[in-house]
Amino acid sequence: MSDTPDSVVRAYIDEHRAAFLDDLADWLRIPSVSADPAHAADVRRSADWLAAKLTETGFPTVEVWETDGAPAVFAEWPSLEENAPTVVVYGHHDVQPAAREDGWHTDPFEPVVKDGRLYARGAADDKGQVFFHTLGVRAHLAATGRTAPAVNLKLLIEGEEESGSEHFTELVRAHADRLACDAVIVSDTGMWDENTPTVCTGMRGLTDCQIDLYGPDQDIHSGSFGGAVPNPATEAARLVAALHDADRKVAIPGFYDGVQELTGTERELFAELPFDEKGWLRSAHSHGALGEAGYTTLERIWARPTAEVNGLGSGYQGHGSKTIVPSTAQLKLSFRLVAGQDADRVQQSVRDWVAGQLPDGIRHEVGFWGATRPCLTPLDHPALQSVVRAMGRAFGQKIRFTREGGSGPAADLQDVLGVPVLFLGISVPSDGWHAPNEKVELDLLMKGVEAAAHLWSDLAENMPAH
Amino acid sequence: MSDTPDSVVRAYIDEHRAAFLDDLADWLRIPSVSADPAHAADVRRSADWLAAKLTETGFPTVEVWETDGAPAVFAEWPSLEENAPTVVVYGHHDVQPAAREDGWHTDPFEPVVKDGRLYARGAADDKGQVFFHTLGVRAHLAATGRTAPAVNLKLLIEGEEESGSEHFTELVRAHADRLACDAVIVSDTGMWDENTPTVCTGMRGLTDCQIDLYGPDQDIHSGSFGGAVPNPATEAARLVAALHDADRKVAIPGFYDGVQELTGTERELFAELPFDEKGWLRSAHSHGALGEAGYTTLERIWARPTAEVNGLGSGYQGHGSKTIVPSTAQLKLSFRLVAGQDADRVQQSVRDWVAGQLPDGIRHEVGFWGATRPCLTPLDHPALQSVVRAMGRAFGQKIRFTREGGSGPAADLQDVLGVPVLFLGISVPSDGWHAPNEKVELDLLMKGVEAAAHLWSDLAENMPAH
Repeated sequence: MSDTPDSVVRAYIDEHRAAFLDDLADWLRIPSVSADPAHAADVRRSADWLAAKLTETGFPTVEVWETDGAPAVFAEWPSLEENAPTVVVYGHHDVQPAAREDGWHTDPFEPVVKDGRLYARGAADDKGQVFFHTLGVRAHLAATGRTAPAVNLKLLIEGEEESGSEHFTELVRAHADRLACDAVIVSDTGMWDENTPTVCTGMRGLTDCQIDLYGPDQDIHSGSFGGAVPNPATEAARLVAALHDADRKVAIPGFYDGVQELTGTERELFAELPFDEKGWLRSAHSHGALGEAGYTTLERIWARPTAEVNGLGSGYQGHGSKTIVPSTAQLKLSFRLVAGQDADRVQQSVRDWVAGQLPDGIRHEVGFWGATRPCLTPLDHPALQSVVRAMGRAFGQKIRFTREGGSGPAADLQDVLGVPVLFLGISVPSDGWHAPNEKVELDLLMKGVEAAAHLWSDLAENMPAH
Repeated sequence: MSDTPDSVVRAYIDEHRAAFLDDLADWLRIPSVSADPAHAADVRRSADWLAAKLTETGFPTVEVWETDGAPAVFAEWPSLEENAPTVVVYGHHDVQPAAREDGWHTDPFEPVVKDGRLYARGAADDKGQVFFHTLGVRAHLAATGRTAPAVNLKLLIEGEEESGSEHFTELVRAHADRLACDAVIVSDTGMWDENTPTVCTGMRGLTDCQIDLYGPDQDIHSGSFGGAVPNPATEAARLVAALHDADRKVAIPGFYDGVQELTGTERELFAELPFDEKGWLRSAHSHGALGEAGYTTLERIWARPTAEVNGLGSGYQGHGSKTIVPSTAQLKLSFRLVAGQDADRVQQSVRDWVAGQLPDGIRHEVGFWGATRPCLTPLDHPALQSVVRAMGRAFGQKIRFTREGGSGPAADLQDVLGVPVLFLGISVPSDGWHAPNEKVELDLLMKGVEAAAHLWSDLAENMPAH
């Protein structure tokens, strides 16, 4: 049997697997909980640890980038080839809080391997998936006989993802020249399940707002005045009820303007996935499926824009009763956006719509917190095809497509850097992100290393540099 | 000029006015704030003071009735005539909290007379209006040459009205035999204004509930699951929006069953009142009038049943945003009821309606806090005619009719004792109940004494005893 690139990669990985896992365990021992100020020093230690490891991996340039919050790590390894495309890998080195008493069977910051799984906070989200790129790039060099990657490889590993990425856009904007690239590879997502390797092709966008309604200048007596003056709680509820029509479509005029409809092919690809609605409802802690008529559950969460009530508050909420007409009401709404929608236009549609719904005597304010754009890579995009081929070589299986219903900092990279965002992740739903006993499947983790090892050559061949 | 009963009453009142006001001032000095446990001894002192004064007035039986809360005062003065009807006068001796720093120009518990007004907490609500019955019954005896009233006169003056009358129904039930009567006269209301003497003919009833909706077992991610599972905040809002139709009529099937519609005469009588909508909106601290189509503001608040949202709560209500589908939602609703409506049937209608509105996946609970029945005395009721004539003799003006939009313990007396409830009050909106600088107009207060003095003979002549 001759040495193919694939067999070299596998041999290289097998040889270095034990050291790789020892190193990862060291990193997982650092409780880099970004949401807890008491762990600020640990988050910094985690950044420094990663920086040292990336230097050891061979990255000639490694820097810790400060923000007004937690530090990020930047690393760069230029290709020796001319006209090589440039890629930024995105991930994060901070983790969710975790404590033994939350239901962990073992110390969340003392990694344990059992039955082929590595248990620790951050094993899957996201240290494990960041770390597979270190062994991946070494295997890539070994298999191709290179001393530098086939692409100009940059890593940007942030430290605040689990606490809201507050300073991330700022960071990307400040370093936009250093981060210039042809594509972003996000390694902070997962696959459909253990038996169904998939590539995520996009995330929904998000814009969220607060609507305050003002009625009487103070709470007033519902006996003396009720039924004869407008009640802001009633009007807030009528707004929410008017958000959707009988088919549960969003009823705000202009909301769907520009929405990129699913193609027949995309719907078929979604339908090929082994979706189990009962299991999905369990994961949603929910007792019924309900959404826009004419779409399946997967289509609703991956490819359709939504209007959701995140919070409602008005009047008396204590024990018992208080017969008032409340003075004010407050609504928190979030809108998930899909490709083709413009957040600014959606915001204006919401403002116009609210203004037209309210009766005389109710004053209102609408304030948006922000907007994250949707991202979607077309199925025939050359970089996406490279990711699919790299995953296919690692898994030896047909690679299917998923999307993410959520929204994330990946979209900032897309927007600021003006490039497509691709996803390379091997985590599975059972990994328990943010939950007790988070784990990563070791076999899948090594497939991640393998896919990363194949990706750079494929991209260099197939994705044009600009 | 010969001595008519009216002139004797006036002369008697003039003669005793100074002593009457001195006594009232003494009572007003007792800060009988029932809502504040620190004033429990003052509330008891107020009851004892009143009991002593009623004995001095001539009531042969005076008792302080204990409750699990504050004490009430009961007094009884039987008529010497056979077949005399029996009347219970209702009022209360406790007052709202008051402190100089709330905006009082003088000490709220040190009565001050200025420009024909007596300023003190309780001057109008309700000590002044209870107290006019003491001089009233004496003037009645003087004018008719009696040594006992023309009716069997009973007084029930409770001590918890300003803190929710928690033990009042219990008290009335426990003493139902002692309180047996042919009619109740409530002296705890007011008139239209200084220039428009009126008699209130009824109050609305009330039943209020809490509706809890349960969706996902915990708050869930609106990106991962939103748009594909039912959201209890959305469903709560849709319930509220469905409470009223486009004409702002209550849309719950069966809600209007039995409602006693306004007659043409009643509507004309309402329309005769000098209603100033702008002034009324100011008193409602509101910026628009809105209610059931086809009815005026006065009709809406006095004679139409309503469904009002008193409170709404779901999901995230803090600063900023949190992109969740909330697990639960809570609604507080109150329904004002009018004559002819049955609170039990309304409650069942609400339960049935809620159950039919919710999608699969939303569990719900409906709990009612209680029910107060509406009361309404027909315009041609002989006892109401007596009240109108007594007021007419006191004021020398046409007496018009009002109603109360609120609900009160008067309805308990109606229900437990099974008799009509009538209202005799001389307070005016500018008296500032529950507000700083509460006052009573001394001229109106003395008209109250006069009306009370005339009422007992008229009732004895015109209202049959049972």
